[in-house]
Amino acid sequence: MYPESIKNLIESFKYLPGIGEKTAERLAFSVIELEEEQIKLFSSSLLDVKKRIHKCNICNSLTEDEICYVCSDNTRDSSVLCVVDDYKSVFLFERLGKFNGKYHVLDGLISPLDGINPEDIGLDKLLNRVKNEKFKEIIFAFKPSIEGETTALYIKRVLDGLNIKITRLASGVPIGADIEYVDSLTLERALSDRKLVE
Amino acid sequence: MYPESIKNLIESFKYLPGIGEKTAERLAFSVIELEEEQIKLFSSSLLDVKKRIHKCNICNSLTEDEICYVCSDNTRDSSVLCVVDDYKSVFLFERLGKFNGKYHVLDGLISPLDGINPEDIGLDKLLNRVKNEKFKEIIFAFKPSIEGETTALYIKRVLDGLNIKITRLASGVPIGADIEYVDSLTLERALSDRKLVE
Repeated sequence: MYPESIKNLIESFKYLPGIGEKTAERLAFSVIELEEEQIKLFSSSLLDVKKRIHKCNICNSLTEDEICYVCSDNTRDSSVLCVVDDYKSVFLFERLGKFNGKYHVLDGLISPLDGINPEDIGLDKLLNRVKNEKFKEIIFAFKPSIEGETTALYIKRVLDGLNIKITRLASGVPIGADIEYVDSLTLERALSDRKLVE
Repeated sequence: MYPESIKNLIESFKYLPGIGEKTAERLAFSVIELEEEQIKLFSSSLLDVKKRIHKCNICNSLTEDEICYVCSDNTRDSSVLCVVDDYKSVFLFERLGKFNGKYHVLDGLISPLDGINPEDIGLDKLLNRVKNEKFKEIIFAFKPSIEGETTALYIKRVLDGLNIKITRLASGVPIGADIEYVDSLTLERALSDRKLVE
């Protein structure tokens, strides 16, 4: 029914998560209305991302260079390391603009049920950094889940005796959320992690 | 914050209607996870659509050839013409599979308030076809709106005395809804219940 190039474009949009047939069609038709320059940038940036983006040699974050801009920034606090399980989290913290330390991106979280063991998430690279760089604090910024807990505890045990302060993000009731709609696990954590009102 | 190629890709996704910053970021990151072959197809089909897709010389529908597959199909009923105001409607009817006539795509609808007058929507081409091809019936499949009504009445008046049955889609298509989002049962009913313009 559709001309081949439109069909191909619809298929391409459907590769993307959360985009079904109808949305893909709508997007493909909207491409027809774009300026030629916009389409050229779109087309080339797709290829560029695959060609130019790779992991930072030090922290595994995404970069177009050998070493990402955080790792090569000497003005940042190199005594605090924030360990995340997904490179997207780095951009999340960078946008927040409240963290001035360094990052390390793991290849996911330990999940024995899914067959993901400690040796599968790139811990060697992290442990090498910890040995060579003098961190005073390591912050785990993992998803608050069984896997996140498992990974945090595992790394903490490996680092035991190194005299590094090991912390994790606080869990609790999100600001602005109704206490009524918070799941019981979160509420339980919020209760046990309660803070002195000062 | 983002490497340049990711930034460009985010900007590109934002060209598309209904895609804001957050969604564009999510889509750009998902591109990184795609296979190289998928990205190549995506990239080239964007360019292809702009390069290869153009209007059918006869009906203004989208095609990669001189003449679209409907116009060049001699087995279709060339005595019935369905006039639409958007090329997307052609694909909509084709998917429905209940119409076996020919199409004509206008460049929109008459809308004096927006400064769109009869001479702006490509009526010449339609009237030439009506003169040269022997249509027994012309169906208006416009958006059910003031502009749709205006355009239907205007064309009907121009064609007066030509002994052509002039019909429009039955109401049943919810007023204010976009023809694109109507479920196919409603669209089918609207097609079979088409009414004489009087």
